[in-house]
Amino acid sequence: VPIAEQEIVWTVVVAGGSGTRFGLAKQYERIGGQRMIDRSAGVAAEAGAGVVVVVPAADVERERDAMSTATVVAGGSTRSESVRAGLAAVPVDATIVCVHDAARPFASLALFEAVAAAVRAGADGAIPGLPVTDTIKVVDVERAVVATPDRASLVAVQTPQAFRADVLRRAHASGGEGTDDAALVEALGGRVVVVDGEADNRKITHPEDLAWADAKARATAGSVGAA
Amino acid sequence: VPIAEQEIVWTVVVAGGSGTRFGLAKQYERIGGQRMIDRSAGVAAEAGAGVVVVVPAADVERERDAMSTATVVAGGSTRSESVRAGLAAVPVDATIVCVHDAARPFASLALFEAVAAAVRAGADGAIPGLPVTDTIKVVDVERAVVATPDRASLVAVQTPQAFRADVLRRAHASGGEGTDDAALVEALGGRVVVVDGEADNRKITHPEDLAWADAKARATAGSVGAA
Repeated sequence: VPIAEQEIVWTVVVAGGSGTRFGLAKQYERIGGQRMIDRSAGVAAEAGAGVVVVVPAADVERERDAMSTATVVAGGSTRSESVRAGLAAVPVDATIVCVHDAARPFASLALFEAVAAAVRAGADGAIPGLPVTDTIKVVDVERAVVATPDRASLVAVQTPQAFRADVLRRAHASGGEGTDDAALVEALGGRVVVVDGEADNRKITHPEDLAWADAKARATAGSVGAA
Repeated sequence: VPIAEQEIVWTVVVAGGSGTRFGLAKQYERIGGQRMIDRSAGVAAEAGAGVVVVVPAADVERERDAMSTATVVAGGSTRSESVRAGLAAVPVDATIVCVHDAARPFASLALFEAVAAAVRAGADGAIPGLPVTDTIKVVDVERAVVATPDRASLVAVQTPQAFRADVLRRAHASGGEGTDDAALVEALGGRVVVVDGEADNRKITHPEDLAWADAKARATAGSVGAA
């Protein structure tokens, strides 16, 4: 058996959003008839040995009933705390841990496999990235432009992000906060590589994103039905 | 008369796109019944003393007939060359020159005024910027992550970009190519500041952007009609 076959991949799906006066927390919204959180966790489940879903404490009981195939745990007050709560529920024999945002329901199975494969191949972490289309400027506190980085050297990153399990656990052991999990691993000196992201793997944030996601999920369901 | 009143503002509208086998160059597509180029040039005309529109050489004659209120000139083979062609047609008494992409038809008059005001106030250049919502990574040629810049220090920039006219002419005199005009002014050591950009001031690039723009232009026209 090649070493690659011995990897045990788990995914932590972070669904930390709380409801607002405008309505339901976005991870529970239905797109194409399925809740976003179920769709995101479903792809993660296909991609590995198991899934831990992190939700606000108030939602844990309900979600334990709703999600039969995932371990459901309560999140913390920041995204990094929620990831740590999820990580604590990942079995110790997991060798690769992916972290994924529930708000990205269109990450493909192939994308999970691509980030895990890059970690198998030796990286400490692997993250999906897309070329940056906007011109980005670095500004100072007075919003004067300090630099215009070469756009070719920039990527806009997505989840799922995959990590060698012990490296991710060490990166989170200090209790730090990062823009993303990769930043914590980078801070340890870990080698993080970028694989091709997916245009459809958008983070669903605004009402117009939700409308797009619903239309897309329906279109996809339609083409599956027609096959 | 305060000095501010003596400023003479001109805008170069860059519409360099050529048609493809998929259809019309995007600047000539209609949104809400009006061509994108006419809409972009129309706002620019309200904002100052005059407008130079830069189009592909093959379109110049047709556009001179179509656009009665703007000076129409032929562009070059790069965006910067096209800006230079436009700049050469701006009267020498202009004191502030804005550069605007025809593919951003929803820049408001207030945005033109805001960038011009920042130049009046002493900056060499002023550009609209929005907070960056994605996590951005700097990568090396092998796509290993080199840095995760603090997102708070990054902005995604738009047009119109306004410049002190003589500074912009100097910045372009060397014939350089920049990601944007501000980058050429920065390279000279000019002080470029960022003002608040506008969410609707998107660059229309993909067919789905065009559908969004058409719907938005129709909605806006409807609300004007109802007023």
